[in-house]
Amino acid sequence: MTSHLVTGIGELVTHDPRFDGPLRDAALVAQDGVVVWVGPASAQPAADARTDLGGAAVVPGFVDPHTHLVFAGDRAAEFEARMAGTPYTGGGIATTVAATRAASDDDLRRRLAALVAEARAQGTTTIEVKSGYGLDVGTEERLLRLAGEVTTETTFLGAHVVPPGTDRADYVALVTGPMLAACAPLARWADVFCEPASRVAFDGDEAREILVAARSAGLGLRVHGNQLGPGPGVQLAVELGAASVDHCTYLADADVDALAGSGTVATLLPGVEFSTRSPYPDARRLLDAGVEVALATDCNPGTCFSTSMPLMIALAVRELRMTVAEALRAATLGGAHALRRDDVGHLRLGARADLAVLDAPDHRHLAYRPGVPIARALSL
Amino acid sequence: MTSHLVTGIGELVTHDPRFDGPLRDAALVAQDGVVVWVGPASAQPAADARTDLGGAAVVPGFVDPHTHLVFAGDRAAEFEARMAGTPYTGGGIATTVAATRAASDDDLRRRLAALVAEARAQGTTTIEVKSGYGLDVGTEERLLRLAGEVTTETTFLGAHVVPPGTDRADYVALVTGPMLAACAPLARWADVFCEPASRVAFDGDEAREILVAARSAGLGLRVHGNQLGPGPGVQLAVELGAASVDHCTYLADADVDALAGSGTVATLLPGVEFSTRSPYPDARRLLDAGVEVALATDCNPGTCFSTSMPLMIALAVRELRMTVAEALRAATLGGAHALRRDDVGHLRLGARADLAVLDAPDHRHLAYRPGVPIARALSL
Ligand SMILES: [Zn+2]
Ligand SMILES: [Zn+2]
Repeated sequence: MTSHLVTGIGELVTHDPRFDGPLRDAALVAQDGVVVWVGPASAQPAADARTDLGGAAVVPGFVDPHTHLVFAGDRAAEFEARMAGTPYTGGGIATTVAATRAASDDDLRRRLAALVAEARAQGTTTIEVKSGYGLDVGTEERLLRLAGEVTTETTFLGAHVVPPGTDRADYVALVTGPMLAACAPLARWADVFCEPASRVAFDGDEAREILVAARSAGLGLRVHGNQLGPGPGVQLAVELGAASVDHCTYLADADVDALAGSGTVATLLPGVEFSTRSPYPDARRLLDAGVEVALATDCNPGTCFSTSMPLMIALAVRELRMTVAEALRAATLGGAHALRRDDVGHLRLGARADLAVLDAPDHRHLAYRPGVPIARALSL
Repeated sequence: MTSHLVTGIGELVTHDPRFDGPLRDAALVAQDGVVVWVGPASAQPAADARTDLGGAAVVPGFVDPHTHLVFAGDRAAEFEARMAGTPYTGGGIATTVAATRAASDDDLRRRLAALVAEARAQGTTTIEVKSGYGLDVGTEERLLRLAGEVTTETTFLGAHVVPPGTDRADYVALVTGPMLAACAPLARWADVFCEPASRVAFDGDEAREILVAARSAGLGLRVHGNQLGPGPGVQLAVELGAASVDHCTYLADADVDALAGSGTVATLLPGVEFSTRSPYPDARRLLDAGVEVALATDCNPGTCFSTSMPLMIALAVRELRMTVAEALRAATLGGAHALRRDDVGHLRLGARADLAVLDAPDHRHLAYRPGVPIARALSL
């Protein structure tokens, strides 16, 4: 049993209802990686080890509940063409699937580790990682095995798109049959890209079939929903008790109502709208209706190749009109709830001692200093 | 005489018209800090020292031609209120002026050094620094002396705003008289915030008087112009031969025409529009008219507290609809021209060997990976 005192905390955001907002001039003690004491520096207890942060602000380590980090290749040319408004005849997701299938485990592992380290270097301490660039049994299984080397929050996304040239019904049968059987032991979650307007993603009936099968196999549920247009994704997520429905750009009033009374978090991914020059979701409508909101990067090579939770906070404030406090909460506690975790996303007693240390006097600098890497992870 | 070979450059952007765009698998040799050889790695010469970049992309170090880095305090509360749309009764620039006047040289120096290091850590190798938070003779002189410790690109901005409670004509007389006399020996440039719509900044006649006096004192000219509304700033900058007119959000056709035929660069500051939720300038209109465009951070505690040139590139692509190549050029060669420098902003033979090394295979990742600190400065 080793206790670790962190002192010199200029501002400490805990999300602990015992305190009326952030603490000034605070200290924190962790024992064996768990928060056991939080309070004013003037009352700090003795401990076996000690770290002085010299007045830095500390917030809970960021929880990024939506990434696609296991892949090979990149799609910089597609990005460049999209931004310039010039035609591009690349293969989209299929390009990444081909590169990923062809990559060795070691190549994928090296790239995944680099991206996780990059996220951690900007304060992310819990990260979800999806499969979805395999789209065959062997590769999906391989991607989940690799994801499981870096996080417990692994998500089976065989239902990312229907592979080109594959019959839709055959593919749904594969995903709900042999692929699910192979992948379920390696995943905590299952996810479906439910987007009827897209001809490559899944409609409501297909998504329901896949989610129900995944739930029967013991997986928790998540949904990519209502990104590109109105659709059944949100209602399906709520009905089936999914932990989160992600994107939520095109919502009917009934979608907002359903979310408001549910245990399903709305996870917003403003980096996607930034990198695709698309309309942003209406976070205020969700927040004002009492919906719990999370922020995530959606880090992937096609629509948002960023691991930066601080950028998502800055975009949430600039573009989603969230207050800084709402954005920070969504990037920590919101993400934890989107992963049904109660041990991360806050610094109450009993939480994992996962901190984001800011090179700044207070948490507002996360949005006030866009593009500046002021956050870093510190896990005790 | 020590020569230094940099090899393992996956992509090298030189802006050298000898080459048809970026080089792949390149090398570069510097001698005493100057580029003396560039070419394919297969032809690389021997050298005294050698650095292998392992396939990283290299672009010219970023040139940030517009910052306000010498100040004390911050205005996070003002930022938070502005973004939330709630009333805020702080003092704006006057708050920073009061804090800066009260700060010791050592405090200002420490903070300035930290911001310069922060910029350098993201690839900036040449940076302009303005005074303008003193607004009295002694403090303006002090700020320029401190700025001169970190850059040769020092700008006298006594004409930032008219200090509250000061008669406008008296203040213009001070700026063009004793303040200019004290500051001119410490500055390369003079700048004026020309914005008739603002009651605290300067109108066209005042700006002309200040700029003409500064020119007579041997200073090069720069103008903050046409930021908040239409005005005479651009025309004045062109007429007086200013190196740059900065902001350029509200332009008449005659402004664009004047810039197109001139030696005055239009420096765009998209971080300001990002951090104030304001309309972005129309970069395409300028580029399509043949105007030379630069990008800068405008790093300051009020309207954009970012030192990140990669963020400015990402915003230029997302919001100003510049291509990635145009944005990179504006962040390097454009900035150099805005400072009338021919030794930086490119990697032609004879240039300063100031590089930005990217943790990426090519320069497009600067916009493709928003918020991720992939660039770092390397000066040989
Ligand atoms: Zn996604
Ligand atoms: Zn400025």
